[in-house]
Amino acid sequence: MSNATPYKVYLTESELPKQWYNLRADMKNKPAPLLNPATGKPATFAELSRVFCDELARQELDDSTKFIDIPQEVLDFYKMYRPSPLVHAEFLERALGTPAKIYYKFEGNNTSGSHKLNSAIAQVYYAKQQGLKRVTTETGAGQWGTAVAMACAFFKLQCHVFMVKVSYEQKPFRREVMRTYGATVTPSPSTTTEAGRRILAEFPGTSGSLGCAISEAVEEAVNTSDCRYVLGSVLSQVLLHQSVIGLETQLALQKLGVKPDIIIGCAGGGSNLGGLIAPFAGEKLRGEADYQLLAVEPASCPSLTRGVYAYDYCDTGKICPLQKMYTLGSGFIPSPNHAGGLRYHGMSAVLSQLYHDRVMDAVSVTQSEVFEAAELFARTEGTLPAPESSHAICQAIKEALKCKKNGEAKTIVFGLTGTGYFDLAAYQKYNDNEMTDYIPTDAELAASFQNLPNF
Amino acid sequence: MSNATPYKVYLTESELPKQWYNLRADMKNKPAPLLNPATGKPATFAELSRVFCDELARQELDDSTKFIDIPQEVLDFYKMYRPSPLVHAEFLERALGTPAKIYYKFEGNNTSGSHKLNSAIAQVYYAKQQGLKRVTTETGAGQWGTAVAMACAFFKLQCHVFMVKVSYEQKPFRREVMRTYGATVTPSPSTTTEAGRRILAEFPGTSGSLGCAISEAVEEAVNTSDCRYVLGSVLSQVLLHQSVIGLETQLALQKLGVKPDIIIGCAGGGSNLGGLIAPFAGEKLRGEADYQLLAVEPASCPSLTRGVYAYDYCDTGKICPLQKMYTLGSGFIPSPNHAGGLRYHGMSAVLSQLYHDRVMDAVSVTQSEVFEAAELFARTEGTLPAPESSHAICQAIKEALKCKKNGEAKTIVFGLTGTGYFDLAAYQKYNDNEMTDYIPTDAELAASFQNLPNF
Repeated sequence: MSNATPYKVYLTESELPKQWYNLRADMKNKPAPLLNPATGKPATFAELSRVFCDELARQELDDSTKFIDIPQEVLDFYKMYRPSPLVHAEFLERALGTPAKIYYKFEGNNTSGSHKLNSAIAQVYYAKQQGLKRVTTETGAGQWGTAVAMACAFFKLQCHVFMVKVSYEQKPFRREVMRTYGATVTPSPSTTTEAGRRILAEFPGTSGSLGCAISEAVEEAVNTSDCRYVLGSVLSQVLLHQSVIGLETQLALQKLGVKPDIIIGCAGGGSNLGGLIAPFAGEKLRGEADYQLLAVEPASCPSLTRGVYAYDYCDTGKICPLQKMYTLGSGFIPSPNHAGGLRYHGMSAVLSQLYHDRVMDAVSVTQSEVFEAAELFARTEGTLPAPESSHAICQAIKEALKCKKNGEAKTIVFGLTGTGYFDLAAYQKYNDNEMTDYIPTDAELAASFQNLPNF
Repeated sequence: MSNATPYKVYLTESELPKQWYNLRADMKNKPAPLLNPATGKPATFAELSRVFCDELARQELDDSTKFIDIPQEVLDFYKMYRPSPLVHAEFLERALGTPAKIYYKFEGNNTSGSHKLNSAIAQVYYAKQQGLKRVTTETGAGQWGTAVAMACAFFKLQCHVFMVKVSYEQKPFRREVMRTYGATVTPSPSTTTEAGRRILAEFPGTSGSLGCAISEAVEEAVNTSDCRYVLGSVLSQVLLHQSVIGLETQLALQKLGVKPDIIIGCAGGGSNLGGLIAPFAGEKLRGEADYQLLAVEPASCPSLTRGVYAYDYCDTGKICPLQKMYTLGSGFIPSPNHAGGLRYHGMSAVLSQLYHDRVMDAVSVTQSEVFEAAELFARTEGTLPAPESSHAICQAIKEALKCKKNGEAKTIVFGLTGTGYFDLAAYQKYNDNEMTDYIPTDAELAASFQNLPNF
């Protein structure tokens, strides 16, 4: 197959973004402010900076500065694995026999195995700048914890990761990557925190959840000097850092002379999707261009498509600020049968607002169809995708097949957030035809919504 | 840190090599011919083509054609993961405080996790061209089997992998990657072949070896119509395909205006090292330039540094052609404590001849120092390296520290063949201070040499 356009576009180092793009500056309807759970009032800088580094607290509150300089030390680190390639999926197109053009932005070419490193290195840099010695965080599937461990190794900070117990036990190799980078890894819930002890007392056999691990990590951070907490998704600061994905994608597409019709990303807390679509959503909000922006979430944890838009707790222990978001309720725990990440009960405030304002659409897909798409992608495009990323692949394939049916040559861009090297237990289930789907019933969701706070 | 030279060099797609380079054409002392074990005479095309595809048998015998066109379908596949980057390891340099310049060619950015894909796709392509339906192969650490499975998925051929039993059991995830790409994976020794049954009868509790798995895969191939055998290292055809590594490295260095002093690669069967150094060894043989070419092997399996240069069996079952090479004897099985690949008893005939002629040097390193180097590399340069690749890292660090001691600003280039995502059981041992070294005694080696054939 010969092709006029290149298969892959790498920007040059001089073309790499030097600033992050803050989409909130272009939103007329700003995301609702975080609330202090004790007072019900908007969280202040003083309150946030007990949990987060000062600069990150400022970024969290800043909904007006459009571009924020990426520190030189972070740019230096980005050089190690960025630019990530924008790939023309011509082998997948050929396998589907579609007139659609499919491109994907591949963020998996680094040891954390995902885009998470883009924000981890920024957050750890600011911690170091502030003179801190240590950060805490939580991890579920493990990408975020690995990314923070790598960033801490680079800047020589200590790193304590609370790893959701079921992942800690099922993914010992993820744990070993983090240890290789010098991190301490504790299964959550643990007995080292008040939040952990409370949850263990109430649910002695629990296999843990992200919301619980967040409570533990935050509690340790606020009770330890020289320490702050870092979070890999949901927060607006994270979407800001992840805008580097979208900015690179935008420039690479411009260099190719390609205008996308549909931009697709998987959505758990929203870090990848929010970063990928940021500059395109900005153009859309400013009336300069139109794109279909599409969030893909698991049918087993459908916060956008079946959640409610309300203030909710971000963590099980209810010690973090409240956020207005599409949520399934902070007590919602998706089926353990669901592989990979995308298990969080809520969605980024920025993306929630965009969805509420119909700037962005959302769909959900089942686990079986996700792995079917993953296998086809692996066999045609070579790369073994992460289950998370495969949600986007699945939807991209559906859109491409719609184009085939309708004879439309749309241009589809999706985010391939990471690789599936640590998800082979899930692949094994799929290979052995033992994979099951789980979709929560309306009654289950209604019960979960009962726990929403009154704000 | 700002730097005049870029951190990474990616060639453009138009700069990618269109031909492989056959180093044998520039060797005055050609590698000795393969011998038929039954007749003791040089293996003929007719004999080799029972085992290998016709075109590969021709390439194996061809020691005079300097450049061989890479088929367009193989170039198309190469586009998916090539060019691989040449990286200036400035973070490692800084950590070492060395005046040396260190560059590495990174071949791990593909799902097989290593350079093995370069030859797998070529071999499977020729099988398809010949109208075959199926290939067999063996795999130890798993990179080669994964690469063949990926190539077979791409060209829609059936793939049967005999996986060394100890790896099959210890690396279930490697097995699942291969299955995801559609391969059938059988632990070796198995009862499906005469060679396997013979070995099981003699050593009932054996955990297998590469030499045994080769015998099984070859036996099945020669006894099955529409099927041939493919091998990931040792053979001259494999080094030919792997020359793409060296050709890209050479061009990238030229673009940087950098002339290397030392070129370092890990060596098991020689596939990566032979490919990396090919064009540089060619310049050296033609008297156009001088380089120190350095093979690094494990102290636990030291075929170059402690082996003998003699004709030996390539497989345990003694059904393959004999090869003149540096060997530890075909019955040599390295300690199971040794992690990763680089466990083969012999070395590529091409590299053996270069070493014998002192065009190339060799050193060995112990497992503990290899993992120490791997950890430093991961923490400074980001990427978690494969244990195999870490042998090269270890020696590169030693050379850079020599430069520091002597105040020399040498330029060191090494091959980073792959990533360590499937080697975390070994990293765990290292993290837990449970890693042990094993070095065979002279008596053990002398006993193994007793089994060399008389040719």
